[in-house]
Parts: sequence; C-alpha cells; structure tokens
Amino acid sequence: MTDQSLLRALDAHYRSMPPVAALGLSIAGYDGRHLRLRAPLAANVNDKGCAFGGSLASLMTLAAWGLVSLRLGEAGLAAEVYVADSQLRYLKPLYADLEAEAELAPDEDWDVFLATFRSRGRARAQLLARVRLPDGAAACTFEGRYVAIAKG
Amino acid sequence: MTDQSLLRALDAHYRSMPPVAALGLSIAGYDGRHLRLRAPLAANVNDKGCAFGGSLASLMTLAAWGLVSLRLGEAGLAAEVYVADSQLRYLKPLYADLEAEAELAPDEDWDVFLATFRSRGRARAQLLARVRLPDGAAACTFEGRYVAIAKG
Repeated sequence: MTDQSLLRALDAHYRSMPPVAALGLSIAGYDGRHLRLRAPLAANVNDKGCAFGGSLASLMTLAAWGLVSLRLGEAGLAAEVYVADSQLRYLKPLYADLEAEAELAPDEDWDVFLATFRSRGRARAQLLARVRLPDGAAACTFEGRYVAIAKG
Repeated sequence: MTDQSLLRALDAHYRSMPPVAALGLSIAGYDGRHLRLRAPLAANVNDKGCAFGGSLASLMTLAAWGLVSLRLGEAGLAAEVYVADSQLRYLKPLYADLEAEAELAPDEDWDVFLATFRSRGRARAQLLARVRLPDGAAACTFEGRYVAIAKG
C-alpha cells in the first residue's frame, strides 16, 4: 500500500473503536518518522477546563501505536500491535486542542525492529510521544513499549 | 458531607466531563480505603474485541483521582487534585466489562497526607490501581502520583 492508503486505513481503524471515536481524533501528519494525531479540547475537557489526563494518555498511546502499525504496513508486514507498558508525565495544563506526536526512542532503530519481526515473528519497540502547549513547551510526555506479533 | 453525598457529588463530577461520560463510567464501591469504578466493555472496546488501553488508563487514573478527592472531601478540605505522573502495565487482554480499584500505595498514609495538606495547603500521594480479569488475575496495573492543592 502507499502511505496515503495506509493512512486512510489507519484513520478508519481508529474510528472503528468506540472509545477512540469519542476522542474526536484525526491524523494531523506523518513524515515516516513522526505521526501526529489531533483531538478537539471540547470532547476532551476535564473539570478544570483543560485537557483530561485520560484523553492525553489515550492520544499519545494511539499515536505511538499508529506509528508502529504504519512502519509495519509500509514494510508489507501483517501484525497485531499491543502496548505493553507506559510512563506518563503531566507537566502543564493544556487549554487548547490536543496534538500528540510520536516517534521511535532515540536508541532504537526501525530497521532492527523490522528485521527482528521478519526473523522471529515478533519484535518490541520503545516509543516516545508528547503533547505540546501552544507555545511549544511540553504539556505531557509518554514513553511506551510496544509488541508486534505476526498475524495468523 | 456524608460518604453517600460525597459519592453522589463525585459521580456527578465524573459525568460532567465529556471524555469521562463517554466511558460509561459508574461508581461500583467505596469502603474508605478502596474506590472501584466500572465501565462497560462495549463503550471501551478496541480493534481486537478487548478493552482499549486508553480506556483502562483513564479508568485507573480516575479511580485513583476519585479516591484522593473523597478522602479530602471526608476531611472537609476543598482541593484541586491533579495527576502528576503514572506508570501502567498492560498484562493480559480483558474481554469483559472494566472494573478498576484504586488504593493508597502501601508505604503511604492518609493521615500524613491530610496533615501535610492542612499545614502546607498542598500534599502529594502515591496511588495504586488495577483492573482484574474475571478470574482475578491482573489485566493491567497503575501507579500514579497525585498532587492536591488547596482551593482559593
């Protein structure tokens, strides 16, 4: 598949999950290394008028999950992708729409991940994600470990 | 307020947040040390037919947040409660309704937390939460640090 058809498939995949549809999520960009997801504040607001921690957690978890899925899809590999664990830090309240950006952790390598997956039928990757404030500072950060397992 | 009116206020508080209302959450029990929250699988299902990681994260984050809020409310203290950070482990897929139970971490003490809050106008607490499988094994676990800040 081309990147465009993979992105359309990912978007449809996200929207097929009721709790993800409730976030009002959309794909904001993908350049092969970073996946950005957006969600409106109105659907994700807490009692203090800022972004709900659970929505921030969901959006970052989904951005990293989507990036792993896209890299596998681009390589023509069919996999189930699971989040195994995550660490989150909530640094500052966000009073604007949510945009999460995910990327591979700096000490990891997509080629190694894909080669491991091809040879063993499973592979792990450490992903980073963050949501920024309008001024560019981090509102929250995410580190998560994902496992991809070959389908079938 | 009595426990019952505090629980009703907490329930209304949860439901007032659009992303929390979307979870279909309800309070399942409170005994002074543990708060249990439930949410139906149907509203929180992922692409694999099991509970979505983001919903599990939200429910555990909210259960721990609610427990801190209840303990402050019982003590007659008005506070804003924030989650500062969290660590989650997704251990097994859950193909049933979600029930999260939160409690204070074993090396913490509510009396110390409340005394600190009274004297300084802010206090931190480490909370634990988990969601179990129908057989009692853990589906996922949560550790989170919360900050309470006096209102006004």
